[in-house]
Amino acid sequence: MRVVLLGKVWWAYAIRPYKMEVRCRHAIANNTLPIAAVLNIFACPLIESCYMSQIFFTVGPAHMYPTVQHHVATFFTKQLGSVSHRSTEFRVLHNHTVEQLRLLMGIPPEFEIYFSGSASELWERIIINCVRKESYHVVQGAFAKRFYEYALEVGKHPTCTKVPNGETILPNQVQVPPQTELIALTYNETSTGVQLQPDVLTACRAQNPQAITAVDIVSCAPISPLDFNTIDIAFFSVQKGFGLPAGLGVWIVHPRCVERALQIQAEQSIGAHNTLPKHHRNFLLGETPSTPNVLGIYLLGKVAEDMNTIGIQTIRHESAQKAEYLYAYFDNHPTCTPFVQNKKARSETVITLRVQNPAHVLQYLASRGLRCSSGYGDLKDSTIRIANFPAHSFADVQQLCAAFDTLPT
Amino acid sequence: MRVVLLGKVWWAYAIRPYKMEVRCRHAIANNTLPIAAVLNIFACPLIESCYMSQIFFTVGPAHMYPTVQHHVATFFTKQLGSVSHRSTEFRVLHNHTVEQLRLLMGIPPEFEIYFSGSASELWERIIINCVRKESYHVVQGAFAKRFYEYALEVGKHPTCTKVPNGETILPNQVQVPPQTELIALTYNETSTGVQLQPDVLTACRAQNPQAITAVDIVSCAPISPLDFNTIDIAFFSVQKGFGLPAGLGVWIVHPRCVERALQIQAEQSIGAHNTLPKHHRNFLLGETPSTPNVLGIYLLGKVAEDMNTIGIQTIRHESAQKAEYLYAYFDNHPTCTPFVQNKKARSETVITLRVQNPAHVLQYLASRGLRCSSGYGDLKDSTIRIANFPAHSFADVQQLCAAFDTLPT
Repeated sequence: MRVVLLGKVWWAYAIRPYKMEVRCRHAIANNTLPIAAVLNIFACPLIESCYMSQIFFTVGPAHMYPTVQHHVATFFTKQLGSVSHRSTEFRVLHNHTVEQLRLLMGIPPEFEIYFSGSASELWERIIINCVRKESYHVVQGAFAKRFYEYALEVGKHPTCTKVPNGETILPNQVQVPPQTELIALTYNETSTGVQLQPDVLTACRAQNPQAITAVDIVSCAPISPLDFNTIDIAFFSVQKGFGLPAGLGVWIVHPRCVERALQIQAEQSIGAHNTLPKHHRNFLLGETPSTPNVLGIYLLGKVAEDMNTIGIQTIRHESAQKAEYLYAYFDNHPTCTPFVQNKKARSETVITLRVQNPAHVLQYLASRGLRCSSGYGDLKDSTIRIANFPAHSFADVQQLCAAFDTLPT
Repeated sequence: MRVVLLGKVWWAYAIRPYKMEVRCRHAIANNTLPIAAVLNIFACPLIESCYMSQIFFTVGPAHMYPTVQHHVATFFTKQLGSVSHRSTEFRVLHNHTVEQLRLLMGIPPEFEIYFSGSASELWERIIINCVRKESYHVVQGAFAKRFYEYALEVGKHPTCTKVPNGETILPNQVQVPPQTELIALTYNETSTGVQLQPDVLTACRAQNPQAITAVDIVSCAPISPLDFNTIDIAFFSVQKGFGLPAGLGVWIVHPRCVERALQIQAEQSIGAHNTLPKHHRNFLLGETPSTPNVLGIYLLGKVAEDMNTIGIQTIRHESAQKAEYLYAYFDNHPTCTPFVQNKKARSETVITLRVQNPAHVLQYLASRGLRCSSGYGDLKDSTIRIANFPAHSFADVQQLCAAFDTLPT
């Protein structure tokens, strides 16, 4: 018996605790907690903590992808936190992440991939590196608006097309001014749960093919497929769909943008830190301009690799199924209903619900170990938000809906 | 026996593996590996990996502080990677780090503490937030020069006082122009191993008390004591003296700088991302302007707490002892001698050695499990660099010197 218990402890601690967590959570979701799991709960406080753990349906920082903790342990065992960012060890790590992201998101070979501290940092970097004077912004909510405001704050002259919260812009509404140097789009608006119509992207591009098209894919990467032939920049942060700890932004850039930055730099400042030309020079060496978040880059590569093992098509298919299930459920809920009326404009990854008493709903869900996000900005008092990311299993989603079944009125 | 073994496994995996690592490393250093440790090596691959592990004397990224891996595990077990950066849980975590840093580094209550992605990011933020036109830089090496160059690249008009590599600036050499808005000092020059004379700081301040004084303490925090009465800004990154994974910069700011930024903002752009006024507003709430590196902030707070438990005076005393031992050893080494001749100007935390064949020396040390840094820039072919950080025990330093004893000529 002791040998068996030792084996269990060994397996649980050292080999793959995340598998155990997944098994336990599934068992809890299905009310079929097996005896082996019960034994493990008594044997291991780690597993007990999994049993007590909450499921985060928050829109970011979000639920950790199940393999993250395992990869973190490997990172430290291999002492990768100590290696120089100018060493071969780092370049191997960096290039692994770049290649796994390319494979996962279908990023063409001519695009380069740079790393920053966050996606909001990139709003500023994109504008100062790619715009002399004028940018154009499609604004469907608070985050696209902040991108527009960043352009104002760094002294540019941005214009925008804007719709009320929860509504979506139609292709015939966009009007890109002829002098526009940058078209800024937010593919998935995290504040409202509205997804951009792909036709809008096409319309913007057609109206001004000379402008650089930059797409914020913060809360829909790697789920929403992107046609990289129609864009020059895409960027995201890792604490949403990738289920990683916050602190890393990813900047996917066509070399055309580097050329543009060099032209602008001949006339005015494009900043000093992590400029596009500096990123480009270092990327060719498999490095970054300054010491980056090495742990974040490593984890992103490993989780992208795990997702590639499953296959992006499978992950996207499961995501679509979960989204369909969620929207179908809430379309028929008596008090909590989808905030976005236009079904075509509903985000697959950020589901915003109109509810009567958001604080009360969030509290009830939390008491069941289910954490969701409050509404954003003006919508705080009338909505809540639910993430549907790859870290969430179908059983997680079913568990969430089951909790809404018993929501006290 | 099995119970004993189980107990050992339990203790090694769950309670404090880092203590085990420290014990093993000490035993190896002293050639007295006890039987218990040998048993553990056979029992636990984790401990085995410690036995095989290398000691990083690299100047950053550097050797991990021994408790880091333990704190990382707790972070994930508590699901802190998923909590919102606008939640009470985050504010508690944020404020804990702020308070532990205050205690550790003697930061007065009026100073605020902000977080960025790196220290080099802060070179840019400091200049665009605090300078309309003119900054003055004391340049003793490549990193202070990059601070100066950042000012040039963002379109300011910096001036500087510069000395050759390895030399130090004397108080009577500094000449702060009367219009200077910012005095930029690099307390510990990571490229050369030269430490600033505190008198230089006093002289700069006396020549222009209206200017904001910003001190780069990247590679000497928290070792070198700073008199916060004589400065307005200090900043560092965590992958050096704190022994943490890279990806977090720390910005210690007097509110006077926020006022200055607001004055400048009325006339020209101070950027859009993580500006001083935005940092200030969010700091008062226990938050950050955008989603930060939550894991990095948590680890910094926990390691600062561990250091406070030991006591900063003890840590500084040990650091001074190790530095004294190292310099005394290399002053008498036949082929590897201190690069900085002026003993008063020698850095306590970054020891630069003039060696005949740097690549050969680094390779030999690496073959003994000891990793040091190459020289920087122009000094790459003639020097190597050794870090002396709190993560290094006296025994580690002795082990390093023992390896130099047997360096093939």
